[in-house]
Amino acid sequence: MPISLVTGGAGFIGSHVAEVLIAQSHKVIVLDDLSGGSLMNVPSKAVFVKGSITDPVLLAQVFDKYKIDYIYHLAAYAAEGLSHFIKRFNYQNNLIGSVNLINEAVKHEIKCFVFTSSIAVYGGQTPPMTEEMNPQPEDPYGIAKFAVEQELKVSKEMFGLDYVIFRPHNVYGERQNISDKYRNVIGIFMNQLMKGESLSVFGDGGQTRAFSYVSDMALVIAAAVENKAMYGEVFNIGADDACSVKTLAELVMQVMGVHGKINHLEERNEVQHAFASHGKLCEIVGAYQQTPLRDGLMKMAEWAKSSNHLPSKKFELLEISKKLPPFWK
Amino acid sequence: MPISLVTGGAGFIGSHVAEVLIAQSHKVIVLDDLSGGSLMNVPSKAVFVKGSITDPVLLAQVFDKYKIDYIYHLAAYAAEGLSHFIKRFNYQNNLIGSVNLINEAVKHEIKCFVFTSSIAVYGGQTPPMTEEMNPQPEDPYGIAKFAVEQELKVSKEMFGLDYVIFRPHNVYGERQNISDKYRNVIGIFMNQLMKGESLSVFGDGGQTRAFSYVSDMALVIAAAVENKAMYGEVFNIGADDACSVKTLAELVMQVMGVHGKINHLEERNEVQHAFASHGKLCEIVGAYQQTPLRDGLMKMAEWAKSSNHLPSKKFELLEISKKLPPFWK
Ligand SMILES: NC(=O)c1ccc[n+]([C@@H]2O[C@H](COP(=O)([O-])OP(=O)(O)OC[C@H]3O[C@@H](n4cnc5c(N)ncnc54)[C@H](O)[C@@H]3O)[C@@H](O)[C@H]2O)c1
Ligand SMILES: NC(=O)c1ccc[n+]([C@@H]2O[C@H](COP(=O)([O-])OP(=O)(O)OC[C@H]3O[C@@H](n4cnc5c(N)ncnc54)[C@H](O)[C@@H]3O)[C@@H](O)[C@H]2O)c1
Repeated sequence: MPISLVTGGAGFIGSHVAEVLIAQSHKVIVLDDLSGGSLMNVPSKAVFVKGSITDPVLLAQVFDKYKIDYIYHLAAYAAEGLSHFIKRFNYQNNLIGSVNLINEAVKHEIKCFVFTSSIAVYGGQTPPMTEEMNPQPEDPYGIAKFAVEQELKVSKEMFGLDYVIFRPHNVYGERQNISDKYRNVIGIFMNQLMKGESLSVFGDGGQTRAFSYVSDMALVIAAAVENKAMYGEVFNIGADDACSVKTLAELVMQVMGVHGKINHLEERNEVQHAFASHGKLCEIVGAYQQTPLRDGLMKMAEWAKSSNHLPSKKFELLEISKKLPPFWK
Repeated sequence: MPISLVTGGAGFIGSHVAEVLIAQSHKVIVLDDLSGGSLMNVPSKAVFVKGSITDPVLLAQVFDKYKIDYIYHLAAYAAEGLSHFIKRFNYQNNLIGSVNLINEAVKHEIKCFVFTSSIAVYGGQTPPMTEEMNPQPEDPYGIAKFAVEQELKVSKEMFGLDYVIFRPHNVYGERQNISDKYRNVIGIFMNQLMKGESLSVFGDGGQTRAFSYVSDMALVIAAAVENKAMYGEVFNIGADDACSVKTLAELVMQVMGVHGKINHLEERNEVQHAFASHGKLCEIVGAYQQTPLRDGLMKMAEWAKSSNHLPSKKFELLEISKKLPPFWK
């Protein structure tokens, strides 16, 4: 029975990955500091360790206690737009935390390190984003993800650490934190509709994203360690079809069965059209499941209406307040 | 009178930059934690603050107390080869420390942030390295430097922070820490000769470097803030002529007036031929002073023989010991 550590397994994507692994009879250890996730999300068959990847002493204990074969590293503070205002926290949590894990992975010679980077590493280049492009991240979140990618590459060359890197984009679905006002437009929309608020759209809503259903992603991510052809490689992963935020707002109102209004806010400093080629991934794993947007939204809406949600949390430790969008104040 | 903060001003290059600034009637604040530098190096006319760039509270105090116009950020732990074995420390000191400074620079709207990155960001690409090449660092030290470069770019776009980035290579000269066994081949050679030891050369000594005299560098770095054409840009800086480590060993023996033996050690995982084009810099500042290697070595040898040196320090907090070259154990 392979033993897998899933960091961030109390979070959105991590809990789905943990679930798939358990179904495939891995023993799963979830490590999460619950800063963004919730115990409700942790599969009951997983061993849960509460703690932070920024704590090297705790990590050493976990790796000494369990003979870990695979690391699925999904823990991160993922509010991309906010990362400009919390630079230090961003690098501490997302980069130093990852480096602590890489240290343990090297010392304990684990078999494969699966890392969820992000489409954010590409920045505002002309889409479709392909893996041959040179990353040009445009915010601290993307810079930290890119640095972890490079760290894995260097650790492979120096110490033989095997890894698979995914760059997901715009994942949505059940167990997403819909109370997080800093990110995830779909969750924000659903939350606003349930509170009877109007939907906040930055600029004219013409910006497009390819929204990707979480279970589709979790299946591919969980299976990566079985496929040696994926080792040492980086893959975009997500849905192929892009959709504008305006259209998305309409769709979300439909699946939620609520007529809301749209509230146009000032444009943000963000990438206009972010979508990615998944050709490299398809060449290796074939065509993977891509749940149509409306179907995925319906499942998520059902979950959103029938579940308890985390209270909305404000990020308390802003390092810079200059230029903070009014919406976040 | 412009007020300049020089981080790492008790170190090698930083102390020379501080000296040039004082000669040009800047008020200079040196911030250094003395982890690698020495009070002996700090120019007497500089205000000295002992402390670390990793301490945001101290930084806030310094920026509140002095109305700083320019930051010359040279503080770093710069043992490139060792960085594989001290990943966390490397990112903490060199990246998080830099990010703390960038936060203050943004908050206090300083006029220009001068950063010494490194030729290490290029990795093992085919020389000559030019600024158009995409960085491909091959060790944590280079990854951290590259991340700081990206941070500056993003902070310029988001907050209007002006900056100038230098990528120096193989700097040598007076006040170099010649007791540091982890880096700086010239200092190591001089130290070995003074102790009557043989000179340790990794591999066959055929690897080439363009050794750059410190005063030449300090003049250009100090002057950068005066030249708006340099703002927002990155520049290689250093000597044009490359020399093999084998030839260097001969030269150092000549200037030190000592006949030593060469001790060939196992090859290291390092870049074979690192040299850089300085065309971009020359286009903006013209041909800058390039002291011939033999002349620079003679000045350095004179200093080395007549000065007290720091005791040799071992780096105590190795995070990984696997694959550590025997020489460093
Ligand atoms: N959701 C997306 O669209 C998307 C897109 C690209 C990449 N990603 C990446 O996928 C991963 C999972 O994202 P998600 O959307 O599920 O986010 P999430 O916030 O739901 O999950 C992240 C989990 O990590 C935990 N965590 C954060 N910092 C931690 C720390 N220091 N120590 C331990 N646990 C910590 C949180 O408590 C949370 O449970 C992240 O790495 C994210 O950057 C997500
Ligand atoms: N020497 C070279 O050939 C070379 C080449 C490329 C880049 N650089 C860069 O130039 C800069 C200066 O290098 P150097 O050769 O003078 O090294 P150095 O070690 O002589 O100087 C670095 C100084 O920074 C100080 N320092 C380190 N960490 C600190 C911290 N956290 N807080 C405060 N001070 C701290 C040290 O005490 C030291 O005085 C570094 O950023 C280095 O990466 C040097």
